[in-house]
Amino acid sequence: MAGHYVVRNVTRAAPEVVAGLREAGVATAHEAAGRIGLADPAIRPRQDGAAIAGSAVTVSSHPGDNLMIHAAVEMCQEGDILVVTTTSPSTDGMFGDLLATSLRARGVAGLVTDAGVRDIATLRAMGFPVWARAVSAQGTVKASPGSVNVPVVCGGQVVRAGDVIIADDDGVMCVPRATAPDVLAASRARVAGEADKRAKLESGVLGVDMYGLRDLLDRLGVRYVDELPEDGA
Amino acid sequence: MAGHYVVRNVTRAAPEVVAGLREAGVATAHEAAGRIGLADPAIRPRQDGAAIAGSAVTVSSHPGDNLMIHAAVEMCQEGDILVVTTTSPSTDGMFGDLLATSLRARGVAGLVTDAGVRDIATLRAMGFPVWARAVSAQGTVKASPGSVNVPVVCGGQVVRAGDVIIADDDGVMCVPRATAPDVLAASRARVAGEADKRAKLESGVLGVDMYGLRDLLDRLGVRYVDELPEDGA
Amino acid sequence: MAGHYVVRNVTRAAPEVVAGLREAGVATAHEAAGRIGLADPAIRPRQDGAAIAGSAVTVSSHPGDNLMIHAAVEMCQEGDILVVTTTSPSTDGMFGDLLATSLRARGVAGLVTDAGVRDIATLRAMGFPVWARAVSAQGTVKASPGSVNVPVVCGGQVVRAGDVIIADDDGVMCVPRATAPDVLAASRARVAGEADKRAKLESGVLGVDMYGLRDLLDRLGVRYVDELPEDGA
Amino acid sequence: MAGHYVVRNVTRAAPEVVAGLREAGVATAHEAAGRIGLADPAIRPRQDGAAIAGSAVTVSSHPGDNLMIHAAVEMCQEGDILVVTTTSPSTDGMFGDLLATSLRARGVAGLVTDAGVRDIATLRAMGFPVWARAVSAQGTVKASPGSVNVPVVCGGQVVRAGDVIIADDDGVMCVPRATAPDVLAASRARVAGEADKRAKLESGVLGVDMYGLRDLLDRLGVRYVDELPEDGA
Amino acid sequence: MAGHYVVRNVTRAAPEVVAGLREAGVATAHEAAGRIGLADPAIRPRQDGAAIAGSAVTVSSHPGDNLMIHAAVEMCQEGDILVVTTTSPSTDGMFGDLLATSLRARGVAGLVTDAGVRDIATLRAMGFPVWARAVSAQGTVKASPGSVNVPVVCGGQVVRAGDVIIADDDGVMCVPRATAPDVLAASRARVAGEADKRAKLESGVLGVDMYGLRDLLDRLGVRYVDELPEDGA
Amino acid sequence: MAGHYVVRNVTRAAPEVVAGLREAGVATAHEAAGRIGLADPAIRPRQDGAAIAGSAVTVSSHPGDNLMIHAAVEMCQEGDILVVTTTSPSTDGMFGDLLATSLRARGVAGLVTDAGVRDIATLRAMGFPVWARAVSAQGTVKASPGSVNVPVVCGGQVVRAGDVIIADDDGVMCVPRATAPDVLAASRARVAGEADKRAKLESGVLGVDMYGLRDLLDRLGVRYVDELPEDGA
Repeated sequence: MAGHYVVRNVTRAAPEVVAGLREAGVATAHEAAGRIGLADPAIRPRQDGAAIAGSAVTVSSHPGDNLMIHAAVEMCQEGDILVVTTTSPSTDGMFGDLLATSLRARGVAGLVTDAGVRDIATLRAMGFPVWARAVSAQGTVKASPGSVNVPVVCGGQVVRAGDVIIADDDGVMCVPRATAPDVLAASRARVAGEADKRAKLESGVLGVDMYGLRDLLDRLGVRYVDELPEDGA
Repeated sequence: MAGHYVVRNVTRAAPEVVAGLREAGVATAHEAAGRIGLADPAIRPRQDGAAIAGSAVTVSSHPGDNLMIHAAVEMCQEGDILVVTTTSPSTDGMFGDLLATSLRARGVAGLVTDAGVRDIATLRAMGFPVWARAVSAQGTVKASPGSVNVPVVCGGQVVRAGDVIIADDDGVMCVPRATAPDVLAASRARVAGEADKRAKLESGVLGVDMYGLRDLLDRLGVRYVDELPEDGA
Repeated sequence: MAGHYVVRNVTRAAPEVVAGLREAGVATAHEAAGRIGLADPAIRPRQDGAAIAGSAVTVSSHPGDNLMIHAAVEMCQEGDILVVTTTSPSTDGMFGDLLATSLRARGVAGLVTDAGVRDIATLRAMGFPVWARAVSAQGTVKASPGSVNVPVVCGGQVVRAGDVIIADDDGVMCVPRATAPDVLAASRARVAGEADKRAKLESGVLGVDMYGLRDLLDRLGVRYVDELPEDGA
Repeated sequence: MAGHYVVRNVTRAAPEVVAGLREAGVATAHEAAGRIGLADPAIRPRQDGAAIAGSAVTVSSHPGDNLMIHAAVEMCQEGDILVVTTTSPSTDGMFGDLLATSLRARGVAGLVTDAGVRDIATLRAMGFPVWARAVSAQGTVKASPGSVNVPVVCGGQVVRAGDVIIADDDGVMCVPRATAPDVLAASRARVAGEADKRAKLESGVLGVDMYGLRDLLDRLGVRYVDELPEDGA
Repeated sequence: MAGHYVVRNVTRAAPEVVAGLREAGVATAHEAAGRIGLADPAIRPRQDGAAIAGSAVTVSSHPGDNLMIHAAVEMCQEGDILVVTTTSPSTDGMFGDLLATSLRARGVAGLVTDAGVRDIATLRAMGFPVWARAVSAQGTVKASPGSVNVPVVCGGQVVRAGDVIIADDDGVMCVPRATAPDVLAASRARVAGEADKRAKLESGVLGVDMYGLRDLLDRLGVRYVDELPEDGA
Repeated sequence: MAGHYVVRNVTRAAPEVVAGLREAGVATAHEAAGRIGLADPAIRPRQDGAAIAGSAVTVSSHPGDNLMIHAAVEMCQEGDILVVTTTSPSTDGMFGDLLATSLRARGVAGLVTDAGVRDIATLRAMGFPVWARAVSAQGTVKASPGSVNVPVVCGGQVVRAGDVIIADDDGVMCVPRATAPDVLAASRARVAGEADKRAKLESGVLGVDMYGLRDLLDRLGVRYVDELPEDGA
C-alpha cells in the first residue's frame, strides 16, 4: 500500500465544458453544483483578475520537496491546471518561475496548491496565475518520492486527475469530471436568470419582493417595528 | 427575549459630519476618538484605495444565511453602510454582486462584514467597496430569522444603527453617533497639526526633537552608546 | 541585564554588495544562502512590486509604543532598512506616514516589522514600501523604553544592526553582514545558471531531463503506470 | 469623549438567579437564551471541571498593562466574576496568582479575559478558575489609564457590569441582567425536558423518532438507499 | 448531482483488524501505512487517554445543523465511530450529551468531527470520547438536508463509510478498509521491532549507532567540531 | 556559509543556578530578567504540572526530518533540555517515545520544540515532559543535514547551547548563560517580596493601596463615579 505512482492516462472533460465553466466562474458554478467542491478560502489567488478553468493534473508531494512537480510536467497538456498538495502541512515555496516557464511551454493554464509559491513578481509579470496557501521564498529539495495523477485532497476537497478545476478571484473549486456537463448546464441556467434579476434590482425592485421573502420573514417571526423594544436586545 | 426585529427608524449623523469623518480617514479618526472603536484588522479591505464613511444599517444573521441582508436593503438610504454579522463564526460568502446591485440602486456606500463576500471581481468592477473577514464563493440560503438595526458586534466593536462607520485601506472603525461631531472636531485639529509636523519631518527635523522625547528617553533609562556592552543583550 | 540602549555605531555591508543582493531578490538569495534567514511569510509586503535591500537598523519596542522608532530615525543612513520588533505579540499600527516622511528625509529604503502599520494608502502613494504582520489603524503611545541597534528576532530570524535585509514580493530575508559577499557571489552564480535553464525550459525541455531526475525517481520507487492500480490509493 | 471611569454602582442579578444559571451551565443557558451571548471559543477554560456563574465586574485595559485590574478589585463583591478586555489584541499574561489571591479574599468566583493569564499552576492549585485566550508568562506594567464597570466587548460579546457571566468547560456566555430571570426559567424548562429525552435515548429510542424528523428528512429530499448511486458523490 | 442520501449498507473491516489497529495506535499505524491518512492536528482529542478504533459511519452536514447526525445514529453498529463534517467551515457545537447518549446506546465508540462539540464535561464523565476542531456551546438547528455514509473529507483526509478510524491522544487517522489488514500487519511488525529498539536505547545505545546514521551524517557534510567556527552561524 | 555542524563543547550554567531558576519558574524569572526571553505561547506544555530547567542542547533540523535529533542525543548530559527547531514551519511529529527513551537514558530533563511531538500518551506515562507547537502523529525521515549546538530561534527567542531553558505550565523561556546568575538573584528577590505581598492581599489589603496606585490613577485622569456619565461610553 502507499506506493508511488505517476499515472499517464487522464480522461479529461470536453474542452467546451471546461470553457463554459471558466466563463461561469467559481461563485456561479459552486451554486450550480449544489454548493459543493469549494476549496478552503485560505487558498487564495496571488494576483488580481485571473480566471481560469482546466483539467486537473494532480501531485502528491513530500513537504519541502518539489521533485514530483517536475515529474508531473510531462503529464500536462494544453489547458490543464496543476494541483499540488503535500503529505503534511507546509508553506514552503515549492513552485517558482522556472517551473512556471516549463508549464507555460506546455500550455498549462495555472497552478493551485495547498502549500506555497515563490518568484511571485515574475509569475505575475509572466501572467501565469497561481492560487496558493502562502507566498514564501523558502526553497525545496528534489529528494523524496510522491505521486502524480492520484486522487488528492486540496483545500479540503478531493481532486481526481481529469476533474475540472475553476479558479478566479473568488477562490478555487473542483467539479468532478462526470458531473461537469450538468454543472455547466445548471450554471448557464443561473447566469440567464441572474441577468434578469440584476436588471430588476438595478431598477430598484427589492430582493424581498423579487424572491417573495416577506411571507417567510413573517412566518419566521421577524417583526417590523419603528423602534427596538426595551427588552429587544 | 431574543426576538427578531427589523427596526425602521434610524437616527443618522449629520451628512457634513459623515463627510468630514470620511475625509479624516480611519487612522486619524481613531486617534481623535481616543483610540477606541477600531474593528479587528482581520476584517480587511477587499479592494485598494476605497475610502468611505456612512451611517450604519446593521444586520444580525444566522451563519450561512443571507435572508436578513435582503430584509435590510429596504432600510438603507443614500450614503449608508451595511454592517453584517453572524451569530456564530462563518466565512461563507453571504454577499455578492446581486445584493451589491440592489444596495447600489439605493445609494449605499459599501459593506462591512464579519463573514465572507463573493463575486469579488464584479464588486471591484462595479466600484462597490467591501471590508470582509474572507472572500469565499460559498453560497448561502434564505431560511433563518435574524434582525436589522439592532446593536451588533462586528470585528469586536459594538455597532448601533446610525453610528458612523469609517472604512478605508487601514481598516474599519465605528464612531457612536452621539460623539461623532466631537470626533470630527478632534480629527480636524489633528489633521491641521499633522501638516505642520509633516513639513518639519520632511525638512529633516527629527521626531525626538519635534516631540521633545530626548528627556523622556533619558528618564526611562535609555542609554546612548557607541557599541553594545558585552552584557547588553 | 536587560538594559535599554541606542547603539550609534553600525558597521554596514558595502553598498555594491547591498545593491547586488537587491538585484538578486529574496528567492535567489535565500537559495544562495543555503536556505536560511527567511522571515515568517506572515510578514507580508503591503504593496505590490517593491523590491529593496539595505543595512538593518534594528528596533526593539514595547508593544503599542513607538517611542523607540523615533529614537531610531537618527541612527538611519541613506539606504538603510528599519526593522521593528515588539517584546510581546502585537498588531498595533506602530508606524505611519509621519514616520515614513521622517525616514524618507534620511533616505531610508523601507520598513520591516513584526507588528502593524497604518496610513497604508499614504505609504503606497509616497512609494515608501513596508513589510508587516498586519495593517491596523490602532495607534500607539510614546512612553516605554526599548533599544535601537541591538540584535532582535523578526519573523523568527535573528537580525543584527548592519545585517543586509532583502525584501520584495516574495517576503523578507536577513543576510548576516559577514556572509553577504559570499551570498551575493552564490546568488550571481545561480542567476547565471537560471537564464540557461529558463531558456531550455521555454523551449520545451523537461526538468526531469534537464536535472537528470529520471534515475532518482526510479531509485525512489516511483512507478510510471497507465492507470492507477486498484490498491494504489 | 473616551474618558476613563471607575463606576462604583453595579446593579446585580438576584443571587438565586445567578445560582440557577450556574446549575444550568453554558450549553443549556445558551439554548435557553435563543443562542445568543456566547463568547468566542478561543477564550478557553484553563482548568478542567470548573463551572461558575456570577455578576460581571468589567475592566477595559490598555494591552500589556494591568493597572485597571488592580483598580477593579475594590469594586468586586462576593460571587462576582471579573471580565478583563484590552483595547487592542494582546496575549500578555495580565493576571496571575497575586491578583487571584486578592480577588479570592473578596470572594470573587473567577476571571474571564480576552488576553492572557500566568501562574496557571498556582491558579489551579488555588482552585481559582480562569477562562483566557492565552497562557503567557509575559508580565505587564501598571502605567496606563482604563475603565472599570463600563460596557466592554469580550470574545465578541457585549458585557455590561452586572450582567450574568456563566463559564464552564463549554466556554463562556453573557446573559444581560434584565433577561437573566427569563433565561433561567427557559433553562429549567429545557433541563426538565432533557431528562426525559435522555432516558428515552438511553433506552434506544432514536432521535429521528423522538423528534419526529423522518418527515422532515423526506420533505428535504434526503433519500434512503442501500448503496450510493454511481453519480451520488 | 449533489443529491442527499442516507446509505444503509456499509461494509466494515473485520473486528480483529479493527481491534489490532486500536492496539497499534495512531502513531504506529500511520508509519505502517506509509505516512498517509493522518487528519489535521487541529482536530484534537477533547479528553486525555482515550484510544479507540472503529468503522466509520460518515455524516456530511450543513454547518450549524445537526439533523443528519440524528439520521446517522440509526446506521451505527456496535464499535463504529461517527465522523461528522460540514459543507463549509464551522465551530458550532453540533454534538452534545444527548447525541452521545443515543450513540452510546448503540455501542458507538466515539466521535470525530471537523466542527465543534459541547457538553464536554458530561461527555468526559460518560467516558464518551470525542476528537473535534473546537469546543463550543453554540447550538444547532435541525433544518437542512445532508448525507450519511457518503465519502467525506475530515481534517483533510478522505473518509469512506467502513474505513477504519483510529483516534487517540496523538490525533486521528483513517485507514481505507481495503488496506487495513496490510496496515495492521505492518503495524505489528513495527511494534515488534520497537520493543527491541526501546530496550537498546534504554540501555544507552545511541540512535546514531543503532540506525547506522554516522555514515549518512558524514556523507551529508555534517561536521563534528569542538567549537562553532567564526563563520558557522 | 551555512555549513552543518555538530558542536561538541557546550559551556553550561552552574547546576545550582539551573536548580534555582527551576524553582523560580517561568513567570518569576521572566519578570526578573526584565521581561525578555519568553517563547511564543503557541509552544505549549503537553502535560500538566511539569516544571523543569536545564542547559540547552540545540538542534536545527530540516522540517519533517529528525536525523539531527539523533545526532544531538550524544551531546546531551544529565539535566540538559533539548531544543529543536526546523528551518521552515512544520507541525510534523519529529519526536516520540523512542527518542524520549534515549534521552531519558542520558538524564535529559525534557524537550522544547517549535514543531510537533507524537506518542504523547507514552511520553506522559514516562513522565518525560515536552513543550511543543503541535501534537501530530506525522512521522519523519532521517535524510537531511542540520546542526547541533548552533544558535537557533525557537518560539521567536534566540537560544544558544548552554543557555538556561525554564519550562513549566506557563510556557518556556530562555535565560542567556551569562546573565543566569543575575536573573536568579533577581528572581529570589522577587519571590521574597511576593510572599509578603501575598499575605497582605490575602488579608484583604488592596493592590491599589499596597502598590500606592491611587495617585497614579488620579494623575492619569481616571475618575471614580457612582454611575457612568451619559457620554461616558
